Amino acid sequence: MTTPARSHGTKSIRPTARPRDLMEDAPGSAWQARVVTLFPEAFPGILGLSLTGQALRAGLWHLRTIPLREFGLGRHRSVDAPPSGGGAGLVLRPDVVGPALDAAAGPGPVLYLSPRGRPFDQAMARSLAAGPGATLLCGRFEGVDQRVLEAHEAVEVSLGDFVMTGGEIAAQAVLDATIRLLPGVVGNADSLEEESFSSGLLEHPHYTKPAEWEGRATPPVLLSGDHAKVADWRRAESERLTRERRPDLLARRDEEAPDDETR
Amino acid sequence: MTTPARSHGTKSIRPTARPRDLMEDAPGSAWQARVVTLFPEAFPGILGLSLTGQALRAGLWHLRTIPLREFGLGRHRSVDAPPSGGGAGLVLRPDVVGPALDAAAGPGPVLYLSPRGRPFDQAMARSLAAGPGATLLCGRFEGVDQRVLEAHEAVEVSLGDFVMTGGEIAAQAVLDATIRLLPGVVGNADSLEEESFSSGLLEHPHYTKPAEWEGRATPPVLLSGDHAKVADWRRAESERLTRERRPDLLARRDEEAPDDETR
Repeated sequence: MTTPARSHGTKSIRPTARPRDLMEDAPGSAWQARVVTLFPEAFPGILGLSLTGQALRAGLWHLRTIPLREFGLGRHRSVDAPPSGGGAGLVLRPDVVGPALDAAAGPGPVLYLSPRGRPFDQAMARSLAAGPGATLLCGRFEGVDQRVLEAHEAVEVSLGDFVMTGGEIAAQAVLDATIRLLPGVVGNADSLEEESFSSGLLEHPHYTKPAEWEGRATPPVLLSGDHAKVADWRRAESERLTRERRPDLLARRDEEAPDDETR
Repeated sequence: MTTPARSHGTKSIRPTARPRDLMEDAPGSAWQARVVTLFPEAFPGILGLSLTGQALRAGLWHLRTIPLREFGLGRHRSVDAPPSGGGAGLVLRPDVVGPALDAAAGPGPVLYLSPRGRPFDQAMARSLAAGPGATLLCGRFEGVDQRVLEAHEAVEVSLGDFVMTGGEIAAQAVLDATIRLLPGVVGNADSLEEESFSSGLLEHPHYTKPAEWEGRATPPVLLSGDHAKVADWRRAESERLTRERRPDLLARRDEEAPDDETR
């Protein structure tokens, strides 16, 4: 379907190694993120900090950027052209994006970050984290030629019902949500169990020290030491918040419940 | 309600000026982004590149980071403590976040990036862009003490139904989507009119040169030169894609239509 990957134009990023090394070998069992972008300098960006950065340095995941400009055509390495049929803006060419995706070839799906896509959610993050990796194609300008998306069977993924200048921030959001689910990235696995969406509900409010702050008291039940009552309160608060803010989540849960009972 | 803003611990970021200057004056009429974060080094990040970066350097918007760590308590500048009532993880303290939000004080809403919040969408981006600015509070760990969110009337905003390691990437997404709507940021205003969500529909597929690529042809109508037929085709494709992928958007549009007719 596509020509074999060339090694030219692909770079391996480790925050500790500068200048960046040219990638020679595929990493072992680490989760592989391959990002096709006009702005390779934006990576790892925030992903190089905090838990995701520690995990990158620990080799729990691997980041490779494929600079789209290096696949540009002609003396000016042009990557785009006006939309066929007219209209504003510029569209990324299939004969530029295609070779870049060929160079990015690796295990896992090709994701194209686009407001037209399926909304990214925690289930997709879990599914990605359970796999070997992904290629993330960051759009810019008006978008990407449809033919190259079809040729590479790209899955269109949307961060939400809003438009950004490019796909880079969306790619980082997808990677962050996925990488934190990889084994060993978040120290305390209990944190993953209690958070929003793991139960289909929004998470309850949090309180910490001091017990009273600027005339505002912590709910007494949380200071009672009665673990069962604390659990009841948190569950009730989760239900209340979800009902107030996201009745769609409750409706979805109720739709799924009858199936569960028949199993 | 809160003490006056202190200037300590706040920094003004201009990509061209390093080391960063301490902020002395509020900027003129520029849109003001104020970001409270444990990772000020993550900003402007991607926002310093491309259109948002050009706009930052042109003074169309202004970015100020408020490093949360500088408001930490004690010798170790501690910012968090265990959740009241027990459980995994750590919660950001109200007596740390509160003073940081005081220091961030400025025009526009306080947004707390959290998966519990209202899903961010293009209408919120438009509303923010029409205002003077915003304070963005980036959570980390389990979350932020509820009392400080209430005291500062923080609006909880979610990027989607997924969980990230922190609010920084979400803050960048909100800022990117907002800043590109500021006057003068995107050169061709027509681009803003045609894109996804401006009509309540997903955007049609794009094609560009070459007319044939790897055996795949551009739809002939787009090469016909018949502007009316091109517009019809794009409209039909938008409708088809939206029906296939996001029937919820069509349902919402149909709900809103009767109101429009009665005006």
